[in-house]
Amino acid sequence: MKSPVHQRRIENCSRRMKEHGLDALLLTKPSNMFYLTGDGRLCAYAMVTQDGEIALGVPSTDVEDVTALAHFDHIVGFEDEVGMIHSIAHYFEHFGLKAGTVGLEYTFLTQSMLGMLTHPHAKPKDVVPTDCTHLLSEMRMVKEPAEIERIRAAAKVADVGMKAAVAAVKPGVTESEVAAAAESAMRHAGAEEFWRTYVAAGPRTNIAHGLPTTRKLHKGDLVMIDVHPIVNGYSADICRTVCAGKPTAEQQAAYDLYLRAQQATIAKVRAGVGMVELERTMHDILKDAGHGKHIFGPPIHGVGIEFEEAPLPPGHAFFHGEKEPPPLPANVVISVGNCGLYTGPWGVRVEDTNVVGVDGPITLTRYPRALTQVARKPATTKTRRTRRKTRR
Amino acid sequence: MKSPVHQRRIENCSRRMKEHGLDALLLTKPSNMFYLTGDGRLCAYAMVTQDGEIALGVPSTDVEDVTALAHFDHIVGFEDEVGMIHSIAHYFEHFGLKAGTVGLEYTFLTQSMLGMLTHPHAKPKDVVPTDCTHLLSEMRMVKEPAEIERIRAAAKVADVGMKAAVAAVKPGVTESEVAAAAESAMRHAGAEEFWRTYVAAGPRTNIAHGLPTTRKLHKGDLVMIDVHPIVNGYSADICRTVCAGKPTAEQQAAYDLYLRAQQATIAKVRAGVGMVELERTMHDILKDAGHGKHIFGPPIHGVGIEFEEAPLPPGHAFFHGEKEPPPLPANVVISVGNCGLYTGPWGVRVEDTNVVGVDGPITLTRYPRALTQVARKPATTKTRRTRRKTRR
Repeated sequence: MKSPVHQRRIENCSRRMKEHGLDALLLTKPSNMFYLTGDGRLCAYAMVTQDGEIALGVPSTDVEDVTALAHFDHIVGFEDEVGMIHSIAHYFEHFGLKAGTVGLEYTFLTQSMLGMLTHPHAKPKDVVPTDCTHLLSEMRMVKEPAEIERIRAAAKVADVGMKAAVAAVKPGVTESEVAAAAESAMRHAGAEEFWRTYVAAGPRTNIAHGLPTTRKLHKGDLVMIDVHPIVNGYSADICRTVCAGKPTAEQQAAYDLYLRAQQATIAKVRAGVGMVELERTMHDILKDAGHGKHIFGPPIHGVGIEFEEAPLPPGHAFFHGEKEPPPLPANVVISVGNCGLYTGPWGVRVEDTNVVGVDGPITLTRYPRALTQVARKPATTKTRRTRRKTRR
Repeated sequence: MKSPVHQRRIENCSRRMKEHGLDALLLTKPSNMFYLTGDGRLCAYAMVTQDGEIALGVPSTDVEDVTALAHFDHIVGFEDEVGMIHSIAHYFEHFGLKAGTVGLEYTFLTQSMLGMLTHPHAKPKDVVPTDCTHLLSEMRMVKEPAEIERIRAAAKVADVGMKAAVAAVKPGVTESEVAAAAESAMRHAGAEEFWRTYVAAGPRTNIAHGLPTTRKLHKGDLVMIDVHPIVNGYSADICRTVCAGKPTAEQQAAYDLYLRAQQATIAKVRAGVGMVELERTMHDILKDAGHGKHIFGPPIHGVGIEFEEAPLPPGHAFFHGEKEPPPLPANVVISVGNCGLYTGPWGVRVEDTNVVGVDGPITLTRYPRALTQVARKPATTKTRRTRRKTRR
């Protein structure tokens, strides 16, 4: 009942569970369930044993749909929360799990959801819960070739979304309408979903991650656009900053600096490089130009089933329960450029999704990087050169 | 520094904190922060004292933006997670909170976020954390007149979105493209954002809450569309099921039954009615027709800053950490029709946002309820009559 791909993933999971001394996993995070079984949805769970058996619990209405999509050994439909709790108890009993440890996703579960999954009617009292975030993140960090192809497809859709958003940028249009252009274009280009679109203009470009509002663009506003389509379950991450008019010399200089820092960091992406080295490359160029106080958040994060996932840099990792990653192996996929440069009255950010190649970066998001965009003809000679350079 | 509206809310909050024996609240859920201060965003927090003082912590990049939007007494910008932790410690000290209880949102905070907020470097060791979900939900449940006007505005935008989605329904179009039509129309009609759009067609209408996929609509498919725009910070909830062609007699009968159950339940909405009575009205009509096994999830939930909030029915409430609500007071806003009727090969669902009026319901979402829609002329005589009836 499992494809070779999912069989391999579950065997890898079993091995890691043994290493970590985990007798079972009780997963509810859709991205983790999707990776291991081929289907991930809210209000559902997957119990995984150390022997590699997988049992699913889903709403009774969803049993047929999940059966067609997922790879598993057992499935049960529940009617409500009480039924869900009882079905978990049933699986613990079925697998003979009376004592030991069960891995739960502490970076995903709310306090109240955790209370439900570890309710005395669900979990045997001698089964001790522990965090398994890191186990799943480690597995998902290095991408299989087919996963990279899916992220590449998502990156193409992200480029389409960015092109539509940039084409919508003009005075009088709201931030929300710019987001609409991107989102609609991405859905028409093959995205089944997208993570939240960020569009912020004028003074709002100084916000670390500004969700769209109904504020209308003014002539000369900087506009920061960040989109993340989901295509066949995989994401990409692209951010561009453009000007709705003519940027000031100061804005152009800040943009040029930021792009230089981002491109210099991307140039260092290759198997064996450290996250801290990449972060330092990006930060140092900005700091040396006097913008040390204008950075917020880590410049690098992983991209995959989620648009922001492991590897996460050490500082950020604390918040997400992740450990500091080792030097990056080949076929990790990372976004470079997330820290932004926030000067006070306005900010700039440019971000791209890259595969960590053996010999260098493979940049998947390719939409031209230029503060001033020529409407409808975004691929000018200058930006084409930039693209070729980034592609290697 | 506080508007009369926010001053009143914070005084109400203070009073409830005293009743519950809470010395402080440490809020991170955007909807709760928005209600109390006028601004809510991720990666930020609000500390509220029993005396009604409010201190905010936000990313250093966002200080100016938050200052323009929010009502508060103190604000601090932090650079990263460590800075956030230290700023929390600073406020505990500033307010002289060395011991006592601090309310945290257990239905929002993940295990790891909770760990961060209660880190020994953030929280004094003699300050005991406890769940404050219920305190905030109780406050937000009864809407002020200005809040109802905002939900009414959101409902109008929801109607616009539904009209665009239904107009996009035809064989060959993907579920994702139908969602695009709704979302784009809502953004152009004034929504700054929206909660996840659900679009499911054909066999996928049997899923309790089906997110869109790239599956193409077939002639004769049922299509379930559920949208939730955010306008000026407030939401509305509408669901319609339509047919991409001619429904079967069985589908039409199930739809007519479901609509009858929903309308009968809405007819009972008035101040003093119990959530359980409403739930039973809806369920009993479906059960009496032999569909007892085809219902999933509670038929009623609150609508406000979130599209799904308190009041929540008892069963669901357990999962969300809510208590069983008392008879509904006037000016609570609820969505009626969320349980659906899932027959196996397909399902139907119709859902509307209603104000609990003193003398009866005021239905805010008005898009015509009909399985077969006449393209571009949705308001037929029959559906107009239905609307008038629902409006009272």
